[in-house]
Amino acid sequence: MADLIAQLRSGLPETAVQTDPDVLESYRYDRAHFCPAGVPAAVVLPQSTEQVQHVLRVASAHRVPVVPQGARSGLSGGANAVDGCIVLSLTKMRRILEINPVDRLCVVEPGVINAELSRAVAEHGLFYPPDPSSWEMCTIGGNIATNSGGLCCVKYGVTAQYVLGLEVVLASGEVLRTGRRTVKGVAGYDLTHLFVGSEGTLGVVTQATLALRPAPKPPLTMAALFPTTRAAGAAVTAIIGSGHVPSLLEIMDNTTIRAVNEVKDLGLPVDAAALLIAQSDADDPAAHIAELARLCRENGADEVVEASNATESHMLLEARRLSLVAFERLGTTLIDDVAVPRSRMVDLMDGVAKIADKHEVMIGVLGHAGDGNMHPTVVFDQHDADAARRAQEAYGEIMELGLRLGGTITGEHGVGILKRPWLLQELSPVSQRVHAAIKRALDPLGILNPGKMLEHA
Amino acid sequence: MADLIAQLRSGLPETAVQTDPDVLESYRYDRAHFCPAGVPAAVVLPQSTEQVQHVLRVASAHRVPVVPQGARSGLSGGANAVDGCIVLSLTKMRRILEINPVDRLCVVEPGVINAELSRAVAEHGLFYPPDPSSWEMCTIGGNIATNSGGLCCVKYGVTAQYVLGLEVVLASGEVLRTGRRTVKGVAGYDLTHLFVGSEGTLGVVTQATLALRPAPKPPLTMAALFPTTRAAGAAVTAIIGSGHVPSLLEIMDNTTIRAVNEVKDLGLPVDAAALLIAQSDADDPAAHIAELARLCRENGADEVVEASNATESHMLLEARRLSLVAFERLGTTLIDDVAVPRSRMVDLMDGVAKIADKHEVMIGVLGHAGDGNMHPTVVFDQHDADAARRAQEAYGEIMELGLRLGGTITGEHGVGILKRPWLLQELSPVSQRVHAAIKRALDPLGILNPGKMLEHA
Repeated sequence: MADLIAQLRSGLPETAVQTDPDVLESYRYDRAHFCPAGVPAAVVLPQSTEQVQHVLRVASAHRVPVVPQGARSGLSGGANAVDGCIVLSLTKMRRILEINPVDRLCVVEPGVINAELSRAVAEHGLFYPPDPSSWEMCTIGGNIATNSGGLCCVKYGVTAQYVLGLEVVLASGEVLRTGRRTVKGVAGYDLTHLFVGSEGTLGVVTQATLALRPAPKPPLTMAALFPTTRAAGAAVTAIIGSGHVPSLLEIMDNTTIRAVNEVKDLGLPVDAAALLIAQSDADDPAAHIAELARLCRENGADEVVEASNATESHMLLEARRLSLVAFERLGTTLIDDVAVPRSRMVDLMDGVAKIADKHEVMIGVLGHAGDGNMHPTVVFDQHDADAARRAQEAYGEIMELGLRLGGTITGEHGVGILKRPWLLQELSPVSQRVHAAIKRALDPLGILNPGKMLEHA
Repeated sequence: MADLIAQLRSGLPETAVQTDPDVLESYRYDRAHFCPAGVPAAVVLPQSTEQVQHVLRVASAHRVPVVPQGARSGLSGGANAVDGCIVLSLTKMRRILEINPVDRLCVVEPGVINAELSRAVAEHGLFYPPDPSSWEMCTIGGNIATNSGGLCCVKYGVTAQYVLGLEVVLASGEVLRTGRRTVKGVAGYDLTHLFVGSEGTLGVVTQATLALRPAPKPPLTMAALFPTTRAAGAAVTAIIGSGHVPSLLEIMDNTTIRAVNEVKDLGLPVDAAALLIAQSDADDPAAHIAELARLCRENGADEVVEASNATESHMLLEARRLSLVAFERLGTTLIDDVAVPRSRMVDLMDGVAKIADKHEVMIGVLGHAGDGNMHPTVVFDQHDADAARRAQEAYGEIMELGLRLGGTITGEHGVGILKRPWLLQELSPVSQRVHAAIKRALDPLGILNPGKMLEHA
C-alpha cells in the first residue's frame, strides 16, 4: 500500500494524491448513499492525460481497482468507491479547449461542468442540448459515462447524440482516440459510443469532442391540468402521434402536485390527477403552444394556461423543478428511471399506482412524458425498517413493470450498483456474455470500476 | 465441401441453398468491381432468423467464412465474396413487421429496400430520413452495415441516429438482442451502435427497430453559381456559421458541371467554378431559402435561382442527381468519400485540384457541403494502364489529404476492401489493437466477412 502511494506520487504533483482519512471519506459516495461504498486507498486528482496514464499504469501494475469520478451527482452508485481502490477524480481537468462555430463543435476536458459549457457556447450563438437536472453541478465526463438525458431530449436527444469523438485512457494506460471532428465518418467500429454510457468500466475519458447546435429561439410554455392520468396520457399520444415536436413535455401526477403544493403555493388544484407541461422553441412558439393547448383541451384538460413571455414560462416550469425537493422534504427518496414506449406511459402510471396501494407506500410519478421516461419516486421514512423494506420492494416492482411494458430499467441515470439485479432481467444471457467478452477485451485485469453495471467487485 | 452443402441444406428450404456456378458468379461482387472477389462455395438465401442461425452454426462447425450481402450496392467491396465462403444474402428477409406512429418507430427485416420503407412510413405521416443515392435499391441491412448517409444528413443525421435496437445472429449462431423500443435507455453497453457500421464483421443483423420522425414539409430549393470554389466555400461557412440548418446543402465543382452539361443541357454556364444547391423544409421554406440566397449573393454568387414550387425544386436538384451518371459516361470512376471539418472544405477542394494537375487526371468534386463530406471522383480510361495507375495514386492522395485536414477516409461508404490500406493511416496502433480485441470477443473463429475493414482474409 505504501508502495502504491509512493508510485502514484512519483508521477504526479504533490497535491494530486490525497490519503488523508477525512478526504478519503468525503469521496466514497455519489448521491446513492443507500448503496454500499468502500474506503479508497487514495484519491487522485490528475490535471492532464499523461497523469491519468500514470495512474492507470500504476493501478495495472498493482492490480488495484480504479473508480473514476466526476461531480458525484449520479443517482445509482456508479461512482461509489470500493475498498482499497484509487478514486480517480477528473474534476481538476476542466478546461474548455475549443469552441468552433463553423464546425459546430467544442473540445473539452471531462471535468467541465455542464452548465459552464452551456453558457460558454451560448456566447457563440451555439447550444449544447443535454440538460440533466443536475446541470449546474454535473460534469461532462459524468454525462458521457452515463449517457445523460434531461428535459430537452424529447426534441434534441441525449448525450450520445452529441459525442463526436473521445480521448480515452485504457486500463493499460495507453491512450485511445475514437471518432473524429467531422459530422460523418464510418472508418472502423464505433468505439466512441461503446464508451458513452459504459459507467467507467471500459476506460477513462480524458477529452471529448462534442457536436453543438445553433441556439434555439427562446421557448414558450403551456401547462394543462387533467382530471385523470389517462386523459393526460391521451393528450401526450395526440401531441406526439400528430407529429408535434415540443422542446419539452413533462408530466406530474397528483401525488407530485400535492407534494409541490406543500413546498410552495403555486395555485395548483390539489385534486388534479395530472399536470402536463410543454414548451416550444419553434419559429412561432406562441402558435405552436396554442396548438398543443388545443390538443390538451380536446383530450379532456380542465384548465390550460399558455405563457406569453419568458417570466410566465419560467413560473409554469417551477412546479416541475420543485418536485424532487418537495419529495425530499417528505422523506427518503428512491428514484426510479424506467423508460417505456410512449404508448405505454399511462399503463406505467396506472401500474405504479397499484404498486403504491399494494405496498402502502407513497410513490409520486413525474417524468419526461415525451420520451416515455418516467421517474416514479418512492418516498419513505428510512428509520422505519418495515417502511424501508416495502419501499425497496415497490422500487423493484416498478422496474419489473417497466420491463413487462417493453421498456428499460434505466432511461438516463445508469445501472451503477443500485440496478444491477434488474439489469440481469433486462439483458439476456447471450447479451450478458457479450458484455463480459467486451469488458475482458478492454480491461483484462478487471481494474476499472469493479462492481458496477454487470461487473462483480 | 459436399458435407458443408449437405449440412446447410439440412436446415433450410430446398431453394435457399444455391450452388449453380452461374449463380455463384453473380453474387461475387458489390459495385466495387475493381476490388478482388473470390468464388463462394454456396449462396444462401434464408427467410428467417432461425435459418440464419442454422447457417452460422454450420459455418462455425466447418470454420467457413460467411459474407453477408444486401443489395450489393456498396462501393467499397465490403460485400465481395471470398473463396469458398458462404454468401449469406438477406434479400429474402424483407418484411416490414410494424409501423407505430405513437412510438414513432418501425420494426423491419434487413432485406427491406430503403425506398420501400420510406414510402410505407410516409403513408402514416412519418419519415425515415437516411437517403443514400442508391435508396431505390439498397437494403436497410446494408445501410446499417455501413452506417449509410445521404443528402438529408445535414439536417437529419445518418443511419446510426435512427437505429434503436437490433436482432443480431452472432458467429456462434446465438441470437443477441440489443437496444430497445424506447427513445432513451442506458442499461448496459451500447452494443447496437457497435454493430452499426461494422460491415458484417461482428454479426448478421436479422431485425432492426428504427426510430422515425414526423414527415417534414415539402422542401423548396435554391441554386447558386460561384466564380470561385473559395466563394462557394465562404457561402457554406456563412450559412452554417450563422446557425442555418438547411435540409440539403450540396456542392458541385466546374469539372462536375461540365460533365453534367454533356449529358443534358440544363443551362449551366460551363465557366462557373462551383454550383451550390440548398433545400429547406422549414415552417416557411420560401423565406428560409431567400435568406440562404442572400448569403450566397453576399459571398459572391454570380447568379442565384430560387424555386417557387416542387417542380422547379426538382429541376434544380437534377444536376446533382445526374453527376455520377455523367462521370460514368466519361470513363471508369473511383469515388472518394472523404469527410473533413466543414471549415476545411475549400482546402480539400483546392488540394484535390492540385492532385488532379499533378497526376494529369480528371477529378470532379461533388458532395455534401453541409457535412464536409465530399466525393471527389477520379475518372479514367481503365484500358490505359498508365492512366489507371495515375488514377489510383490520385485516389489515395485524396484520402491522405482528407486525413491531413483533420478528416476521415470515409464519411458514408465504408472501408470494405478498397480503403483498408488507408484505414491503417487513420487508426492508431492502439485503436487497431482495440478493434482486433473486439473482433476476437465477438467472432473468435474469424469467420465473419474476413478481409474486410481491418480484418485479413
